[in-house]
Amino acid sequence: MKIDIHTHLLPENLPDWKSEFGYGGFIRLEHHKPCCARMMRDDGKFFREVEENLWSGAARVKDMEQTGVAKQVLSTVPVMFNYWAKPKDGLNSSRFLNDHLAEVVAQNPDRFYGLGTLPLQDTDMACAELVRCVKELGMQGVQIGSHVEDMNLSDERLFPVFAEAEKLGAAIFVHPWDMMGEARMTKYWLPWLVGMPAEVSLAISSMIFGGVFERLPKLRVAFAHGGGAFPFTLGRIEHGFEARPDLCAVDNPHPPSHYVGKFFVDSLVHDGRALKYILDLFGPDCICLGTDYPFPLGEAEPGKLIEDSRLALSQPVKDKLLYGTALKWLGLESN
Amino acid sequence: MKIDIHTHLLPENLPDWKSEFGYGGFIRLEHHKPCCARMMRDDGKFFREVEENLWSGAARVKDMEQTGVAKQVLSTVPVMFNYWAKPKDGLNSSRFLNDHLAEVVAQNPDRFYGLGTLPLQDTDMACAELVRCVKELGMQGVQIGSHVEDMNLSDERLFPVFAEAEKLGAAIFVHPWDMMGEARMTKYWLPWLVGMPAEVSLAISSMIFGGVFERLPKLRVAFAHGGGAFPFTLGRIEHGFEARPDLCAVDNPHPPSHYVGKFFVDSLVHDGRALKYILDLFGPDCICLGTDYPFPLGEAEPGKLIEDSRLALSQPVKDKLLYGTALKWLGLESN
Repeated sequence: MKIDIHTHLLPENLPDWKSEFGYGGFIRLEHHKPCCARMMRDDGKFFREVEENLWSGAARVKDMEQTGVAKQVLSTVPVMFNYWAKPKDGLNSSRFLNDHLAEVVAQNPDRFYGLGTLPLQDTDMACAELVRCVKELGMQGVQIGSHVEDMNLSDERLFPVFAEAEKLGAAIFVHPWDMMGEARMTKYWLPWLVGMPAEVSLAISSMIFGGVFERLPKLRVAFAHGGGAFPFTLGRIEHGFEARPDLCAVDNPHPPSHYVGKFFVDSLVHDGRALKYILDLFGPDCICLGTDYPFPLGEAEPGKLIEDSRLALSQPVKDKLLYGTALKWLGLESN
Repeated sequence: MKIDIHTHLLPENLPDWKSEFGYGGFIRLEHHKPCCARMMRDDGKFFREVEENLWSGAARVKDMEQTGVAKQVLSTVPVMFNYWAKPKDGLNSSRFLNDHLAEVVAQNPDRFYGLGTLPLQDTDMACAELVRCVKELGMQGVQIGSHVEDMNLSDERLFPVFAEAEKLGAAIFVHPWDMMGEARMTKYWLPWLVGMPAEVSLAISSMIFGGVFERLPKLRVAFAHGGGAFPFTLGRIEHGFEARPDLCAVDNPHPPSHYVGKFFVDSLVHDGRALKYILDLFGPDCICLGTDYPFPLGEAEPGKLIEDSRLALSQPVKDKLLYGTALKWLGLESN
């Protein structure tokens, strides 16, 4: 049994939001040949070539049958967060994406769980859409970005959203996006290879130092890419907290290490040593299979790393990583 | 025997470069009480409180006697790189700092090795100053930043400097600075805790993908902070190279893992698990004691982590980490 908590979905056709909202910056899909499309920004900038399994539930189920994935947790592609748009337009695009995603889940309820997206640029709208996602659309939670424009996840304007998620029992998946340093990293895919791990470390550090985990102990948050750069640099972050509490301990008196074991990460680290490292650090009750399906930086054979015989993980540990911890994070544990 | 490859030094008094060069942005030292000073930018912005051991060779030797450090490798504080200044002014400030640093070494040649700083905003000036540092000032090499304004270390404008360093047999120490995302990370010391590890990963990745290590196989480069985020995210970087060679393999056809073992890192990771991780990954012939002396994010007891009995490192491995690999990196190996 495998549950993949990190997969992305888009509608086959996206509205012309540039015309609808009166300004540009949005993504559209250009279907230039059967089964394929180009994700384009509405100023004509090419973003990414994608295939049918990005939008088609049926194509995904076919892939899942081949790779032995029982369930996928669906979330949008981070470039669709639209946090930069006017709040009402961010709400509009979020609702469109959430309605579509819920439909795909409804067509294959035994195959998919759903995570919504929120217009986090407006606290009230985000809270209302979060309630709608969970209570009306039956979603398990939401996916959010590693930051929201100039707000890190420690920002007090975001706290009511986290508080609402805790109240609802909604899971939160934090995905890197809008990578720091992107303008300086024009070659070698470095925003994805260097910027994304930094974004995840920024997100975890911000939630710790901002006291979000401290104030909301029942909140269930999972971070993409095994926690990015955070696990390996925790020693540095911890030492920073000890050396300069005047800078680090201003909003939360507890050290970063106090929160190890209190949040989740996915398993997408592409290296057995790194997976062992997070297993030793976080434990199997904090790690869930995640593949970034259907994108090329993902794990093409879901769970291959977890099942690698060289890691010699016990079956109970494998079972937690492959599905057990995911059920716990999603709030679906039977006991 | 301990050699600390990562320590910083400044002159007790810095020139008034703002007046001399006719524009601002430079650092000065404000001696507001005995044995202490404030590092201030010339627009009045406070940067850091520092103590006498930042500038006084005698104070440093006293500390070294207490902590059992035989030799320190001295380098300037990265905020003094002045890569943003006009080239001739960058050269001027570099020469001033290098002359001072060489003097401190000359006063205690059995205690200190020297690394210079270069005006990397101008290739020719940087090469000339590198030659001067090594041939006239007797330095072992230079410290450079993780990037130089809009240039990453893959930039062809920097390649002649690396080629000159290889020719001279000069060691290069790469230190993070001018951290990506700094403007967005206004709280919790995050530019130091999240930005710096990302900068080191950027530097290593840039030198690999740019083919610097490939073209200069004898170049000896050490990266600060155990390689920052790079070691733990190597799996992701490697997978990126495999998945999108059209983006990653454009200037060098070899995968990132090919260069593991071909560069050095310091030991400043503040966590036994992380030290074990880089030992397993890079091996003891690539890791040198480094403490960031005399700054608070450093290792206050040099070598404490390496000597921690819980790590159970063998004496030959400890000896490499504490001094043997440093001699190799510095080009001072007896054999």
